[in-house]
Amino acid sequence: MNDVVSKLRNLLGSDCITDPAVTDGYLWDWRGLLRGSAACVLRPRSANLLSQSVRICREAGVSIVPQGGNTGLVGGATPDDIGLQIVISTGAMRKIRTVDPVDMSIVAEAGATIAELQTAAAEAGALFPLSFASEGTATLGGALATNAGGISAVRYGSARDLLLGMEVVLPDGRIWNGLRTLRKDNTGYALKYLFAGSEGTLGIITGAAMKLAPLSVGREVAFCAIESEDQVLDFWMKLRAAAEGNVRAIEYISNSCVELAKREGLRAPVGVADHYVLVELTSSRPDAGLKDVLEAFLAERLEDGTIVDAALAQSGEQQKQIWRLRDDQTEIQKKAGRDFKHDVAVPVPRVPELLRRSRAVIESDFPEATVVPFGHVGDGNIHLNVVLPATLGAERAAEQGKQISQAIYDIVLSLGGTFSAEHGIGRAKVDMLEAKRDPIELDLMRRIKAALDEDGSFNPGTVFRPS
Amino acid sequence: MNDVVSKLRNLLGSDCITDPAVTDGYLWDWRGLLRGSAACVLRPRSANLLSQSVRICREAGVSIVPQGGNTGLVGGATPDDIGLQIVISTGAMRKIRTVDPVDMSIVAEAGATIAELQTAAAEAGALFPLSFASEGTATLGGALATNAGGISAVRYGSARDLLLGMEVVLPDGRIWNGLRTLRKDNTGYALKYLFAGSEGTLGIITGAAMKLAPLSVGREVAFCAIESEDQVLDFWMKLRAAAEGNVRAIEYISNSCVELAKREGLRAPVGVADHYVLVELTSSRPDAGLKDVLEAFLAERLEDGTIVDAALAQSGEQQKQIWRLRDDQTEIQKKAGRDFKHDVAVPVPRVPELLRRSRAVIESDFPEATVVPFGHVGDGNIHLNVVLPATLGAERAAEQGKQISQAIYDIVLSLGGTFSAEHGIGRAKVDMLEAKRDPIELDLMRRIKAALDEDGSFNPGTVFRPS
Repeated sequence: MNDVVSKLRNLLGSDCITDPAVTDGYLWDWRGLLRGSAACVLRPRSANLLSQSVRICREAGVSIVPQGGNTGLVGGATPDDIGLQIVISTGAMRKIRTVDPVDMSIVAEAGATIAELQTAAAEAGALFPLSFASEGTATLGGALATNAGGISAVRYGSARDLLLGMEVVLPDGRIWNGLRTLRKDNTGYALKYLFAGSEGTLGIITGAAMKLAPLSVGREVAFCAIESEDQVLDFWMKLRAAAEGNVRAIEYISNSCVELAKREGLRAPVGVADHYVLVELTSSRPDAGLKDVLEAFLAERLEDGTIVDAALAQSGEQQKQIWRLRDDQTEIQKKAGRDFKHDVAVPVPRVPELLRRSRAVIESDFPEATVVPFGHVGDGNIHLNVVLPATLGAERAAEQGKQISQAIYDIVLSLGGTFSAEHGIGRAKVDMLEAKRDPIELDLMRRIKAALDEDGSFNPGTVFRPS
Repeated sequence: MNDVVSKLRNLLGSDCITDPAVTDGYLWDWRGLLRGSAACVLRPRSANLLSQSVRICREAGVSIVPQGGNTGLVGGATPDDIGLQIVISTGAMRKIRTVDPVDMSIVAEAGATIAELQTAAAEAGALFPLSFASEGTATLGGALATNAGGISAVRYGSARDLLLGMEVVLPDGRIWNGLRTLRKDNTGYALKYLFAGSEGTLGIITGAAMKLAPLSVGREVAFCAIESEDQVLDFWMKLRAAAEGNVRAIEYISNSCVELAKREGLRAPVGVADHYVLVELTSSRPDAGLKDVLEAFLAERLEDGTIVDAALAQSGEQQKQIWRLRDDQTEIQKKAGRDFKHDVAVPVPRVPELLRRSRAVIESDFPEATVVPFGHVGDGNIHLNVVLPATLGAERAAEQGKQISQAIYDIVLSLGGTFSAEHGIGRAKVDMLEAKRDPIELDLMRRIKAALDEDGSFNPGTVFRPS
C-alpha cells in the first residue's frame, strides 16, 4: 500500500492527501453515522489525472470510493473501516466549461456544486433546474451518480432527466467521453443513464452536459391548510390541471411537522389543520399572471372545500417564511429527538393511504413516537420520518427505530412503493435491496456490474454486498 | 430446425406461423428495402408463452428477431436472408391493462399500438403524448425498443422519457417484471432505460407503464415564412420564451418541400420564402388564451423582422391543411423521385449551419439532386432528405445517393451531431456505428450485450455486426 500511495503522490503531489487532519472530512458520512478509513484521499485536477490514478490503484488491486460533495444520506461515499481503500474526490475539478442559453445546456466538471451551476446559468439568463437542500455543497457528479431529485423534480425531473451527456472514468482507467448536448441521439445503448444513479459502482463521472430551462421571472408561493389525506391528493390533481406546467413545487407537510416548527419560533400563516400543502408556481413569462391563477385557484378550493384555509405570500419575505416551514424540517426534526428517516415513494394515488396507514400503525404500536412526514407529493415521494423522544435512551431508541422502519417499509412495499425514492442504496440499504428486490433484477444489475467493473474495485459494499 | 418449429407449434398452436402467405408481411422492412427469411413467425399471446418460446429457441441455438408493428426505418426488425432465424412478434399481446388519470399512467402490453394508447388515454381524460407518422401501426414495445421520438418530443420527450416501468423477456427466457409506475425510485441501476432503445438486442419488451399528461383542450396552429436559416433558430428561441411549456411542435420545412407539396395540389397559406416553420401550441387549460399569445407573438415577429409572413389557422380544417404540408412529406418525396433519408440531429444552435452547409454542398456537387429538409427544429433533429430524379437510373442514383449520404453525415459529425437521431441503428447503420463511434463506447455496449445475451441470440446483426 505504501508503494501505491507513493506512486499516487508522484502523480498528484499534494493532491494525494494522507494527513489525518485533512482526510478526516472525507471519511465521515454527511449524517455523521458512519466513519470509514482510507489509505489516502485523492483530489485530481483533471479527468486525465483521475484516470491515471485509477490505473495505479487498479494495478495494485486497491478499491476506490468515489466522492462528490459528500452530502449523500446512505453512506455511498464513505469507505469501509479497514483502511485499505482510497477515496477519490472530484472536488478539485469544478470548472464550468460552457453555458449556452441558445442550446439550453451547461457543460461542467463533476466537482462544480449545484449552487455554482445555478449561478452560472442565471448569469447567462437561464435556469439550472436541479435544487435541493445540500445544493451549496453537493456536486454535479454526486447528484448524477445518485440521481438526486429534490423540490423541483415535479416540474423539471431528477438529475437523470436533465442529463444530456457525460464524461466518465471507467474502472480500468479509460475515459469515456460522451459529453454531447444532443436532444435526440439513438445510436446505441443509453450508457449515460446507466452511469447516472449507479452510485460510483460503474465509473467516476468527471463531467456532464445538462439541460437548462428558461429562467423564472415570476414566482408565487402559497400555504394551504387541508383536513384530510384524500384532499391533499385532490388538491394536487386540481392544481396540476389548473396551473399546467407552472408548478415548480408541491410539498406536503403534516401538522406534526408544523407543530415542531412552531416550537422553534416559526409561524404558520394559516389556521391549524391536520395537513398542509406548500405550492410554488414559477414562470419564465413576465405576463403569465401567476398570481391571478393561484388566487383564483385557492378561492375555488376554499369554495369547494378541498382546503380550509390558505395564505398567498404577498412579498419575497413572506415566501421565504413559508418555505422555512418546509426547508428547516431536517434541522428541526434533529433537534426534536432521535429522528429516523424513511425516503419512500408510492404511486401518487396511494399517498393518502401511505400517510394514514403509517400514522395509524405508529400511533398504535409506538406511542412514544411522532410521525413527522413531509415531502414531494407530486412525485408520490414522502419523507416519512419518525421522531422518538431524546429521553428514550440510545439503545431503546435504536431498537424501536428498527421496528418502526420495518413497519413503514412494509406499508410502502404493500402499496407498490419503493424504500429509496431519492437517496439511493449506498451502504445503508444494501441488505434491504437484497431482501426486497426481484432476484432477476438483482441478477441483471450484477451482470452489468461484472461486465463494466471486472475486478469489483469501484465502490465495493455500495449497492451490492462486498463479494 | 423442424424439431424446434414443431415444439413451438405444440406450445403456440396456430400462433406459430409457417404459411409463407402469412409470414411474408413480417419479412419485409417498412420501406420495402430489405427482405429476410425465417423458419417461422411467432405471435405468442402472453409474456409467459413468449418466455417459453424464447427458451425453446435458446435450447436449440436459434436466433430471434423481435418485432413490434414493423414500422422501423433501419431494418432492425427484419431477419437475415438465411432462413434460420425466428421472428417473434408482440402483435398478439395488445391488452391495455390500466389507464389511471390520477396516477397519470397507462400500463399496456407491448403490442398495443400508439394510436390505441392515445385513444384509451383520451377516453380516460388524459393524453398519451407520443405521436408520430406510423402511430396507427407502430406498437408500444417497438416505440420503446427504438426510443421513438416524433412531433411532440419537444414538449413531452421521446419514448424513453415517458417510461415509468417495463416487463421484459430476457434472452434466457426469464421474465423481468419491472412494471412499476413510481415517479421516483433510486433502488439500483436504471435497467428500464437500458432496454429502451436497445432495439431488441437485450430483451423483448412485453409490457410497459408510461406517463400520461393532462389532455389538451386548446390547440393553435400557425405557419410562418422565414427568410434565413438564422432566423429559424431565432424564431424558436423567442417562441420558447414566449410560450413556455405550451409548444407541442415546432417543425421546420424548407421551401423545396413546400414546392413539392404544391405540385401535389397542397397550398401554402403564406407567401413564398426559403424557409417555413410550423408551430403548434397546446394547453390543458381552457382559459390559457393560446390564440392571443400566438397572435401577439406573430405580430411581434413580423414587426421585428424574424418572419416575413404568417398564417394563424382559424379553424380545425385550416389546422389540418397546414399540418398536411408537413405530414405528407414522406409520401410526397417518395413520389418526387428517388429519396435518400438522413435522420440527423445537431446541437440546436448548429441547425442553421447544418441547413446551409448541406444545401451548399448538394447544390455544388450534385446538381441533379434536391435537398428537401424538414423536421423537429426544437430538438435539432432535421430529416435532411435528398431527392434524385426518377429519370436518373437506379444504378447511378444508388451511387450518387451513397456519395450524398457521405457528404451529409460528414457535415453532421463535424457539427457534433448524430447520424441517427430518432430511427436507431438497426441493420442499416451498423457499419456507420462501428466506423464513427468512439471505440470505448462500443466496447461498453458490447460488454453489456455479452452480459445480458450470452449466446448473442437476440437480434444478431442489429446494432452490432453479427459475430
